[in-house]
Amino acid sequence: MSTIGVDIGGTKIAVGLVDDNGELRATTAAPTPADGARAVLAKAAALIAELGGKPTAIGVGATGVIDPIEGVVRSATGILPGWQGTPVRAELSRLTGLPVSVDNDVRAFALAEAGLGAGRPYGRVLYVSVGTGVGGALTEDGRLVRGARGTAGEIGHLLVSARGPISCGCGRFDHLESVAAGSAIAVAAGESAVPAVVDRMRAGDDAARAVITHAATVLGRALAGFVTAVDLDAVVIGGGVSRIGAEFHNPLAGALRADVRPPGRAMPVLPAALGADAPLIGAALLARDAT
Amino acid sequence: MSTIGVDIGGTKIAVGLVDDNGELRATTAAPTPADGARAVLAKAAALIAELGGKPTAIGVGATGVIDPIEGVVRSATGILPGWQGTPVRAELSRLTGLPVSVDNDVRAFALAEAGLGAGRPYGRVLYVSVGTGVGGALTEDGRLVRGARGTAGEIGHLLVSARGPISCGCGRFDHLESVAAGSAIAVAAGESAVPAVVDRMRAGDDAARAVITHAATVLGRALAGFVTAVDLDAVVIGGGVSRIGAEFHNPLAGALRADVRPPGRAMPVLPAALGADAPLIGAALLARDAT
Repeated sequence: MSTIGVDIGGTKIAVGLVDDNGELRATTAAPTPADGARAVLAKAAALIAELGGKPTAIGVGATGVIDPIEGVVRSATGILPGWQGTPVRAELSRLTGLPVSVDNDVRAFALAEAGLGAGRPYGRVLYVSVGTGVGGALTEDGRLVRGARGTAGEIGHLLVSARGPISCGCGRFDHLESVAAGSAIAVAAGESAVPAVVDRMRAGDDAARAVITHAATVLGRALAGFVTAVDLDAVVIGGGVSRIGAEFHNPLAGALRADVRPPGRAMPVLPAALGADAPLIGAALLARDAT
Repeated sequence: MSTIGVDIGGTKIAVGLVDDNGELRATTAAPTPADGARAVLAKAAALIAELGGKPTAIGVGATGVIDPIEGVVRSATGILPGWQGTPVRAELSRLTGLPVSVDNDVRAFALAEAGLGAGRPYGRVLYVSVGTGVGGALTEDGRLVRGARGTAGEIGHLLVSARGPISCGCGRFDHLESVAAGSAIAVAAGESAVPAVVDRMRAGDDAARAVITHAATVLGRALAGFVTAVDLDAVVIGGGVSRIGAEFHNPLAGALRADVRPPGRAMPVLPAALGADAPLIGAALLARDAT
């Protein structure tokens, strides 16, 4: 039995066929259409048909605030035009004839890392995704913790002691996301995106290195307070910015260990293990868990 | 069947006889001896004997970092001389001939409010205790959540966007405790303790009011980020500083609601219901839960 994972982001739709062992058997991708939600889902359905295989269910990890019970996009301000309110489950199910599960892309990433990646050996784990923004998800024994109102794991709004160069999605400048997000790193370094900052750092530019170290350090310090109060078994760091590697991970983990209460110093702070395919694999796991 | 609750603080030892319904049937108290842990426990045993009744077990809520499994004080820097390392369970059990359970006083407070107070109707609840410091505890369905390393609920080390007038217990000045603790309020207002600040505020002193409002607002904003990421059913605010009343609670709850992600605005933010006796009652519940 294989399932389809779909990762719908602001710039790209990726689709993968995932087997029973969570292995990606085939993938395809296309730019996200900019002319509305109907075109996005039609493109996803076309990519699924193109992949073939005999999938029995579809899981979607999508950008925005997702209601996984109804399979609807609750909020997607400024990400995808017309995405808010889209009944992803109903519409994609109609287009493909298959059962569809939907959740947020960060939760899909967490589910993949919890089941098949860095978080596998641990009970209660926080997954942090640092990309354009800062997101997160909590799992317990490999399953997503959804919380009372569906925001569990959303660490981007944690208060921090530094002021960021961009506003958090909610408008504040003293939230974690305003300091540690990829877009904050780019703006702080005067670049349009993180890779240009990384290129400068690796060419020996101390200012670029300082910007990346600062973002990682503030993230580590915010996580230290959070981890002390929630008292988790492990933290896994993923997302595009985390793939900078040691120059981002080491100051983050160092700041976390320096600030966390002493018992927490033994807690593992791990880089994500599945790379950029994690949300796709996790989306397929969403489908598998639902059937 | 009745149980004994003991609340051991830096200045006072209180002892209560609690019946099956969690009602306090008799109480007594004495200043905490300043000449070492042995004297503290001897005084507690004398107060227990003085109360009489036919208690079947003793629960102790004590200041400091407590290991509830071993019943030992792990850390108590600067609170009670010689308290660190004290085997409270073994020693008090030897002195009284009764089984003894021990935990931190903030956890005892939370257990009481969860079982008999403001948190009773809710599933996952954060209890905040604002006294000399800032502490907290988490409960799920009326039971304490201890976490992976025993620090669950310790919110005093959450990072905040204001610098406090005192250092946090861990040495930082940008942790919640350094801004919102009673000792921070007193220092910020140039007083030796919170009641003097409250007196000035009620006499119309705007500077005193601003100090209290600032502490409450920063606490509310820090909780907003935390509550979004942990996604709880309710937050209960207690401790000596919270008993200032509406002048503290309203700016706190207002800042929390203004900053929390929209689904969290419906989450109740409640004042504790059991007053200063909560740690004593909770300590007795610790004993009852253990037997």
